Amino acid sequence: MTAERGATPGRFLVLEGVEGAGKSTQARRLAEWLRGRGLPVVETREPGGTGVGERIRELLLHERGPQIGAPTELLLVLAARAAFVREIVKPALEQGAWVVSDRFAPSTFAYQGFGRGISRDRIAVLNDYATDGLLPDLCLVLDLPVEDGLARKSGGGPHDRIESEGLDFLRRVRRGYLTMAGEDAQAVVVPAGGLPEEVERLVRREVSDRMAGAWNAPSGQPRPSAKPRREEK
Amino acid sequence: MTAERGATPGRFLVLEGVEGAGKSTQARRLAEWLRGRGLPVVETREPGGTGVGERIRELLLHERGPQIGAPTELLLVLAARAAFVREIVKPALEQGAWVVSDRFAPSTFAYQGFGRGISRDRIAVLNDYATDGLLPDLCLVLDLPVEDGLARKSGGGPHDRIESEGLDFLRRVRRGYLTMAGEDAQAVVVPAGGLPEEVERLVRREVSDRMAGAWNAPSGQPRPSAKPRREEK
Repeated sequence: MTAERGATPGRFLVLEGVEGAGKSTQARRLAEWLRGRGLPVVETREPGGTGVGERIRELLLHERGPQIGAPTELLLVLAARAAFVREIVKPALEQGAWVVSDRFAPSTFAYQGFGRGISRDRIAVLNDYATDGLLPDLCLVLDLPVEDGLARKSGGGPHDRIESEGLDFLRRVRRGYLTMAGEDAQAVVVPAGGLPEEVERLVRREVSDRMAGAWNAPSGQPRPSAKPRREEK
Repeated sequence: MTAERGATPGRFLVLEGVEGAGKSTQARRLAEWLRGRGLPVVETREPGGTGVGERIRELLLHERGPQIGAPTELLLVLAARAAFVREIVKPALEQGAWVVSDRFAPSTFAYQGFGRGISRDRIAVLNDYATDGLLPDLCLVLDLPVEDGLARKSGGGPHDRIESEGLDFLRRVRRGYLTMAGEDAQAVVVPAGGLPEEVERLVRREVSDRMAGAWNAPSGQPRPSAKPRREEK
């Protein structure tokens, strides 16, 4: 990445949703579309993206033996996030890149909070330490009935530990996403039951509506929607 | 473990100290000695002891590539602790066992706090969630100059990631242990520069002085030094 790019405003876009909503497909298509506009793009996913994060992801999805308890799961997710923010997202944003991530903090509120019943206040305190206060500029919640999401994935071999949680769990997760999206001005719900091309069109429209100011802004102009990013160890 | 044992008072003993202080040797000897007195003993170590904990331990000690950052390291240690407390320590204490652990929460205050500079208040909040408020009944801090500890281990092949931190780091860790021991009535410093037999004698004396009331107490009597153990998810 060149030094010149450091002057352009980076943006942090997050795709969220239950299993089978199409997050990874749409993240890839969104990243390609942004690249086509000449923007520097970093495409990533969470948990994972870093060396330690990928090992934590593996542990969370496939650990055998006694099931991982909710507090352990929460702290593992946050450990991966701490590395993800500091090694990938913040450096990329500081260089002016557009970071497109398949999942981020909203997943924790949805899965560990609404799904497993850990209090939102508790998660907020722990998550704030892990993220160093970083928030997405835009969170796209891909929404569809959980049965439809699972049906899309059913051809893909054995279900992993999270997918095997059952419908009630995933319904709580979905309800969590919708509740949070209703409270957060930086979040938007995108109906994701259609064909990938249709969902892609909706995603592009939301990004255009909300982010166009950023990519049309002259290089070096202050970010209109910049949020405070605390620098603390 | 039989149901009868559930009526006897369990105790949680922790051995702490810098590398080469002799924690694992003394933990083993202490456990044998307690077993010789007819007490039910669970011998364990942290991070580790559980399936997920052993994998986290491996990750912490040997992860290659970019060094693990301090926040990620802290959250990984706490993830292992959450499983350790809920899967091993609490069930054993509830059954009336004496749990002898090589390391516990004091390590986090010493290494991540004094060693890496994360604030003690921050660690206290996160650690309290991971431990569900559980505290040791007795913490034995095996103390010796860090150079002597490293010299003891020098024959043992390549140093792991933590051991390679350097003398200044380990000196801060040692100072942390001594500071905390001075503030905590449940902690005691045991000079650990002598032969294993000599250190073992000192350990036994401390445990006898402070814990004898527990193993002489009639079965089922309330624990005189019991601390509040919150039950919260």
